Order: sequence, then structure tokens, then C-alpha cells
Amino acid sequence: MSVPEYWYNILADLDFELPPDLPARSREGSSIRPQVPLALVRQEMSRERRVAIPAGVIERYRQWRPTPLRRARAFEDWLGTRCPIFYKYEGGNLSGSHKLNTAVAQAYYYRRAGVRRLTVGTGAGQWGTAVAAACSMFGLDCTVYMVRSSLLAKPYRKTIMEMLGATVVPSPSGHTDPGRRAGGDTNPGSLAVALAEAFADAQEPETRFCTGSGETYALLHQTVIGLEAREQLAEVGCSADVVIGAIGGGSNFGGLALPFLEFVVRDDDRVRCVSVEPAACPKLTRGTYAYDFTDASGLTPLQKMYTLGHRFVPPEVHAGGLRYHATAKLISALYDRKLIYALACGQREVFATSLAFAKSEGILPAPESAYAIHGATIEARRAERSGSRPVILVGVSGHGLLDMAAYESYMDGTMVDAEATDHQIEAALAHLPGQPVLGRVT
Amino acid sequence: MSVPEYWYNILADLDFELPPDLPARSREGSSIRPQVPLALVRQEMSRERRVAIPAGVIERYRQWRPTPLRRARAFEDWLGTRCPIFYKYEGGNLSGSHKLNTAVAQAYYYRRAGVRRLTVGTGAGQWGTAVAAACSMFGLDCTVYMVRSSLLAKPYRKTIMEMLGATVVPSPSGHTDPGRRAGGDTNPGSLAVALAEAFADAQEPETRFCTGSGETYALLHQTVIGLEAREQLAEVGCSADVVIGAIGGGSNFGGLALPFLEFVVRDDDRVRCVSVEPAACPKLTRGTYAYDFTDASGLTPLQKMYTLGHRFVPPEVHAGGLRYHATAKLISALYDRKLIYALACGQREVFATSLAFAKSEGILPAPESAYAIHGATIEARRAERSGSRPVILVGVSGHGLLDMAAYESYMDGTMVDAEATDHQIEAALAHLPGQPVLGRVT
Repeated sequence: MSVPEYWYNILADLDFELPPDLPARSREGSSIRPQVPLALVRQEMSRERRVAIPAGVIERYRQWRPTPLRRARAFEDWLGTRCPIFYKYEGGNLSGSHKLNTAVAQAYYYRRAGVRRLTVGTGAGQWGTAVAAACSMFGLDCTVYMVRSSLLAKPYRKTIMEMLGATVVPSPSGHTDPGRRAGGDTNPGSLAVALAEAFADAQEPETRFCTGSGETYALLHQTVIGLEAREQLAEVGCSADVVIGAIGGGSNFGGLALPFLEFVVRDDDRVRCVSVEPAACPKLTRGTYAYDFTDASGLTPLQKMYTLGHRFVPPEVHAGGLRYHATAKLISALYDRKLIYALACGQREVFATSLAFAKSEGILPAPESAYAIHGATIEARRAERSGSRPVILVGVSGHGLLDMAAYESYMDGTMVDAEATDHQIEAALAHLPGQPVLGRVT
Repeated sequence: MSVPEYWYNILADLDFELPPDLPARSREGSSIRPQVPLALVRQEMSRERRVAIPAGVIERYRQWRPTPLRRARAFEDWLGTRCPIFYKYEGGNLSGSHKLNTAVAQAYYYRRAGVRRLTVGTGAGQWGTAVAAACSMFGLDCTVYMVRSSLLAKPYRKTIMEMLGATVVPSPSGHTDPGRRAGGDTNPGSLAVALAEAFADAQEPETRFCTGSGETYALLHQTVIGLEAREQLAEVGCSADVVIGAIGGGSNFGGLALPFLEFVVRDDDRVRCVSVEPAACPKLTRGTYAYDFTDASGLTPLQKMYTLGHRFVPPEVHAGGLRYHATAKLISALYDRKLIYALACGQREVFATSLAFAKSEGILPAPESAYAIHGATIEARRAERSGSRPVILVGVSGHGLLDMAAYESYMDGTMVDAEATDHQIEAALAHLPGQPVLGRVT
């Protein structure tokens, strides 16, 4: 098969509109809004079902796409299931995860819009690496504000980004106002400050702040994953009955599931799309559907999302990419309409499954991806109990080769389960911004 | 395309015999010889052109094979060449390199021969990881003796092997006679001692010592790489004019090149197969073709190889897998007959090219693979000068995600070039064992 020539835009097939974003009333009286190129704004608004992928992006996708779809026969044996389990593996590119799919598209559009430099805030470093790689492809400069404590814990992430030509700045830094306010170079930093620094830096000429997970255009770009998987399954005479992805901001789960939801929303075909989240950060299973800020700064526009509250700080778990307090407004709306399902899992059971997957399939999953794989075992057992044998498709969004400390803590028994408490969640939800009174938006 | 159903045995097509191995006269009066299953002995002796891959091995190969073949268009642009450059990427499996191809086959045959446990000596840890993964697949126990200094420098290698169920023992250890003689747990260790320990441990019941790079059966197993590449090129209407691989023990280069040499030896077709070695360990370009021990112990049978002498200790370079004093007897014989070519390169120019490859193609090559990629730039420039535009195929044998220290030293300017001196080579060659007087073996 070849790389898809279009992204799938599910908005064309939904019989409802997404609740509109609302400007935030910040203390300074203005909310931040990244200056997004017109092409991306159009994609966000488009009701075309098929959005053509520009030739310049397809050419880059061909460097690592189509990604492998494989049947996990040895893992099925380990699990003792008769359900066929396929996995789609996105870890084979330099950035090590699916994030490069939208980073490349965004860098392409920013470049075409005349931008010379992108700024980005990153925690664990995956998004930073993806944007650094994409900027390198399109000749853009790139400045990455990386949480200082992460940077010290994972120095090789910095090396990779620098190899790709990016400037990596430990955050908080002395370069920006938010950095200086946060106390400069003795502070371990946080993602909120790193994002604020990247945003402040983007006020420079020909510079833009680049964000990637929950935006509807980012989900659109990620649909290459599910489109490829659909075709690859068809090539072996299969179709997926259950589609499973881990969920943080939503782009990994959405990228895999949205093309299968096309069958659901257009043909009323039954495909069960299941997102898997950490019990430490259970936005879909225990959060609320409300307007909230998209980051901890309290300065972004309000989006209607399943959220635990923008002040919710999840307990430490190794799947850093899933520790986001909310999830994309598009995914949230689908969940609200009961078009998708959600599971929450503890990290020790997840790592036990991931280890079995590594041993049987020879792929070391990223901690985030491990949640999806564990979800597959839950779905397979559930199906067996009801006497059915669905074809299960799992998204393995990245490799875990730079997350060995997580596996080490599982192996040496020091990993603990960390579940969000009712008290934590209630306290954070109490800080939701005042809910706007709107006309019935659906 | 699908996974090949056979390995290619070039011995069927050569009009000469390989010089026979000779038993060594060790100080103890006996030489060591791993007890290899009959199936592997037969493969070593076979003159069948196509050796069927057992179904149990194919099933495992399908977990990560066929591996991608991609055209490196962005890298071609960077280089400014009009030669099409394709690369075959073997880094997408858990072991991170091509070594899993033979580890899986060997574990399969040892298991079928009733063996319960494999022992292995490893330096940088790639072979140990591959055997650990293969043992995990076939339910064998695995004991890895890893050079202590490497193990301390790369603790995650140990974690991965333990995740795969292997027992990892820092070498020298107190477990074996060679380990105790070497001074126990304060000694940083060496590959020679780790191998000797693994071999001593293999004297236990139902246990075998497993070795992988230079043996003719290991090269046979690796031919899946070149067989796939041949078919993948044919699918896009191409064939390779130049085939390039890095060379250590020979299994990576051989695995890619041997199936293309089939055209050369059977049809007198011109395919230029080029091996690339470090200037620090130039066995083909500056070594001699003579009988020598296959490791530093001086206890193994003698094989006729291009060698720098078994006592040659190459200067430190980051491509640990290429620091072997000799190369496989099969590859050596092909070089002696001028059926293949060789280049030697310094590591700084190699890393400069590798960085450009990472930026343009989005794959971070292992230091070993970087030599092959640099070789491709030399061949492309050479072709341009002579006015030709050959199709170039490069083997990218593994990823560099666990070799970031090497890239860091390149980035921060501390990497130095290290070339073997004439004096070093002459001194090591003076210690070649006495050359046997044989009848004309060819």
C-alpha cells in the first residue's frame, strides 16, 4: 500500500456542531491565541470529508509511512485469546512517536505562511523532538523550551533536538518574562511555564508558537494512522471490530479511531472505539464535560471538553503524555454522544502487560502505548466472556527506548500505582471557570 | 511483499571452496569448539542454493519483517547527487539491529536440539539483547555475560535483557573459572573474558554457547535482508548497482550483499558490493589474509580470514560492533577473489554524514550503520566523477537511540579520529599463529 493522499475530516459526517471556543477573560484582560496559518484555520472549520494532503507533506510522510500493521500472534498466545489482535506501530521514526505526523504538516503550513521560526514548550520532550525534526525538514528555525527537571533527567532528548538543529532552552529561563517571573535557572520548571515561555518568545517577528495535541487540525493530520490501518486490514481481508488507543490530549487516539468512526457515523456500522487513560488522570471516566482552559496558565481560550479542571495535577505516572487534565474538544464531544468508550487503568497492570507484549512481539512500547495494549487485553477478555471473537486493533503510538527508567522501576518493584482521589478531582473541578450560558449548541 | 521462505547460500554458486578450519593447539592442548546443533552444521556445509527457512522461524520473522526499504530522497538532495540512494532499515525490532535475524534462527535450532539454556558473551550488548529476545520467543533460558564497564555505562541494556527474562552477569564474575582468574568484580572486563565465561558456563548440562557474527550459518540467516531488498527494489522497477554495508564480523554486510553477489557469481552481472570499516580497525584494507584465532583467547579453531591479528586492540571508536580484529572467512574469501570491495573511514566524517542523514531522513543510525551511509556518499561522488548514476543500496543495520553518548561527543566537539598505526598493525600481525602448510585449498 502507499501513503494516503488525504486526511479524513469527521466533522463532515457528524450531525452536530462542536461547541464553539470562547475567549478567556484573563486577569490581564486578554487571552492568548496562537497565530495559526490560514490553512490550519480552514482545516479547523472545513466540512469537506477528504482534505488533500499537500504533496510536500506526502513526500515527507513517505520517509517513514506507511507504518507497519502487524498481527500480534505471539501476544494472543500469551493472553490465551481467540480474538485476532492487530497493532499499528508509530514508533519507527526519529521522533519515536506519532507526533511527527502533525508536526510535519504544521511546519509545512507555517513555512508556506512565511514563518521563519517555531517555538514549542515540551515536558518529556517528544513533541519538542517531533517539531525539531519537522523544522529541520522545512528549513525553519526551532526553539524548544523544555522543563528543566525533564531535561536534566533525559539529557539525550536535548542531544537529539540539537542534532536536528533546534535551540533547546531549559525552562524556566532568563530569556522571557514568564521564565524570569518563575525564578530562573534554579527552578525545576513545569510544562505550564515552558508553554508560557514558548508563547512569549513567539511574539518575536516571523515566529510562531506551535501546539499539537488537542487541536482539531492536529487530529485531522493524525488520521493518516487510521486510514492506513483500515487499508492494511482490508488487504488481509479483515476489518476492525474494536479499535483501542491511549488518550492524553487526544491526537493519538483520534488519529487511529476517527477513520473507523467514519463507518459508525455514516453507515451505523458497529465499531467499538475505546480510549484508555491512566487511573491517575481519568478525564473521560471521572471528569466532567464543561468549558475549561486548555492549559494550566488560565489564559487560553475556553474549550468545552471532558476535564478534571485545569488546576488538576495528576499523581506522577510514567506515561507523561497522558497526564493532561482534559482531552480534545472533538474527542470529548464524541464521548458525550456515546460514539466512543473509555477505560481507566493502573500503571502496574499496564506495565505487566507491556512487558508481556515486549517479550512476545519484540516491540518495546512507550509507557503511553502500553495503556492501549492493556486495554486490548481487557477488551479481549470481555469479548470472550460474551462468546464473541472481535478483530481488535491497537495503536502502539511510540517506542519506549528513551523511557527505560519506567521499565526499570517496574522490574525492580519500586513502581507504585497512583490513582486520582475523589478529593483531588472535586477540588480541581471547583476551580473550573464560570460556565458560559449559551444557546443550545448542539 | 512477504517474508522470504528461504535463505540464500552463496556457497552453491562459488567455483572454489572456503579454506578449512583448523584445530588450534592451545596451551592446554585442546581448542574450544561450541557444540553446534546438527542443523547448523549442515547449513555450514550445505551446497544447496536455497535453504528453506523453518516455519517456526518465518512466523517470528513476520513480527518485524519485511523491514522497510526506502529511497533517501532528502539525503540525496543534501548530498547533491543524482544517484538514487535506497536504504534498508533493520533497526525497527526490539533488539535494535539486524542481529535478531540469526539469533531467532539459532534459538529455534538449539531448542529443537533439546537445549534448555543459551549462554552468550556481549560487549556493547546488542548481541546479548538479540539472543535474550530470541530465547524469550522459544522458551529458552538465557545467561548473558556482559563486560562490566559496558554494563555500568549502559545500564538500560541490562534492563532490556532482564525484561526479556535473561540473567545478566557482569563479567568478570565469580561464577566461572575464567571470571575468577580475571580478578572478579573489581575488574572492568573485556569481551574476551566475557566470551570465555559464557563458554565455561555452557559446559553445564543442556546448555550451549551461542555465537553469531562471523559464522557462515549466521551469514546465511542474515541473507533475508538482501533477499527482501532485491524484491523490494524490483517492486519499484529498480535493481542495485552498488550495495554498501558496514563490516565488523561480517554478518551485516554479508546479509545485505550476498544475495546481490548471486547476480555477480552466477550471471557475471556487475554489482559493486562495498564494505565499510573504521580506519581504527581496517582488517580488509590493511590486514592480511591468514589463519588466525577468531577471538582474543587464542583457543578457538583457526580460520583463514583477513585479520589484523587476534591480539590487535583497535583504538576506541564508537562503533563497537566494528572493532573486531578480523572478518568472516566467507567474506574474506570473497574479498581475496576481488568479488567485493572495501573502504575505511574516520569516525568524525562518518558522524557528520550520519547527522545529515538523521536530519534529512528522520532515522537515527547506529554508529556502525553510519559507516555504511558515509560509504554511500563516497560511492555517489565517485560515480558522479565518472559520469555514471548507479542505483545505490545502503544497509542501515540498527538505530542509535542507545548510542546517544557517541552523538553527544560529536556534537560537543570532543570526538576524535583514531586511526590504527602501521606500528600497531605490524606488532599485532607478528603474533599471528604459525601458518599451516596446506595443499592448495582453492
